[in-house]
Amino acid sequence: MLRLRAAQEADCDIILQLITELAEYEQLRAEVVADRAALQSALCAPSPRVFCTLAEWQNSLEDTSTAGFALWFYNFSTFKGRHGIYLEDLFVRPEFRGRGIGRALLQSLAQRCMTEGLARLEWAVLDWNRPALDFYAGLGAQALTQWVPHRVTGEALAQLAAQATHASPSRPQS
Amino acid sequence: MLRLRAAQEADCDIILQLITELAEYEQLRAEVVADRAALQSALCAPSPRVFCTLAEWQNSLEDTSTAGFALWFYNFSTFKGRHGIYLEDLFVRPEFRGRGIGRALLQSLAQRCMTEGLARLEWAVLDWNRPALDFYAGLGAQALTQWVPHRVTGEALAQLAAQATHASPSRPQS
Repeated sequence: MLRLRAAQEADCDIILQLITELAEYEQLRAEVVADRAALQSALCAPSPRVFCTLAEWQNSLEDTSTAGFALWFYNFSTFKGRHGIYLEDLFVRPEFRGRGIGRALLQSLAQRCMTEGLARLEWAVLDWNRPALDFYAGLGAQALTQWVPHRVTGEALAQLAAQATHASPSRPQS
Repeated sequence: MLRLRAAQEADCDIILQLITELAEYEQLRAEVVADRAALQSALCAPSPRVFCTLAEWQNSLEDTSTAGFALWFYNFSTFKGRHGIYLEDLFVRPEFRGRGIGRALLQSLAQRCMTEGLARLEWAVLDWNRPALDFYAGLGAQALTQWVPHRVTGEALAQLAAQATHASPSRPQS
């Protein structure tokens, strides 16, 4: 039996383990530099800006396993003037696949959108991942193929920052 | 002379005006349903989850015009275990273009990334917008062409939510 719940501070170890398994699955293990302290600091902040939903599979009251997770945050639609949800990572451990757990995690986020009056649920998929693309199309998702995500990081980010010549606006309230 | 500053509550009218001008420029005016109350509620929440930087052009102390804006929020990298910045919208009014205002807004966000220890600065560009693509490449941005953004909204979102059979995790702290 599947149970979904909001992750708590005590779950940071298992979340880090799941992130590592996800990275190994994607053959990107070397890119994981997250540690427990960083995760705890983000997920358990007084006003957190990122959230994690854990999927647990209960064979019995005494026999519960962590099956997967969804990690998400609030984004914003300028045109709608409303927040939405961005699903940063969705992962189901291989041995728990085929039980509708990924779908249940997505449904749970869709339900949160409806409850909180959010405009939309968004995420990104690798273009070679045909099974995932088909699965998401079947859920009614639109592929926004015209939009190309861009990123500045590392040395390029430092260089761009160093060129700033105008006073930086004050720090947001946290 | 350019001045960048964090938007305040009194700026919601001009932000809505800029959003409308952006939508008109993109021939998407009909999609704007945001209103002042919605913007104010999001931007001026006790712990806001979205932020706006205004660009003002000062000809003199008495002669200041709003030239553009950047609207952004914090995203999160699971592998890094750190937040980043997602730039949802960047707009410079046509009559203020060519003065480096868009670049200054991006630099200001890059500077914030460095100051706050954020992992990266991200945004999305329409694939037919060649001048923008070239401009961003020149800033050191990577085009993440393998990633396809996906969205569920409207009736499809309601349907996905209605299929949820598991108790929804509790509401995040606000």
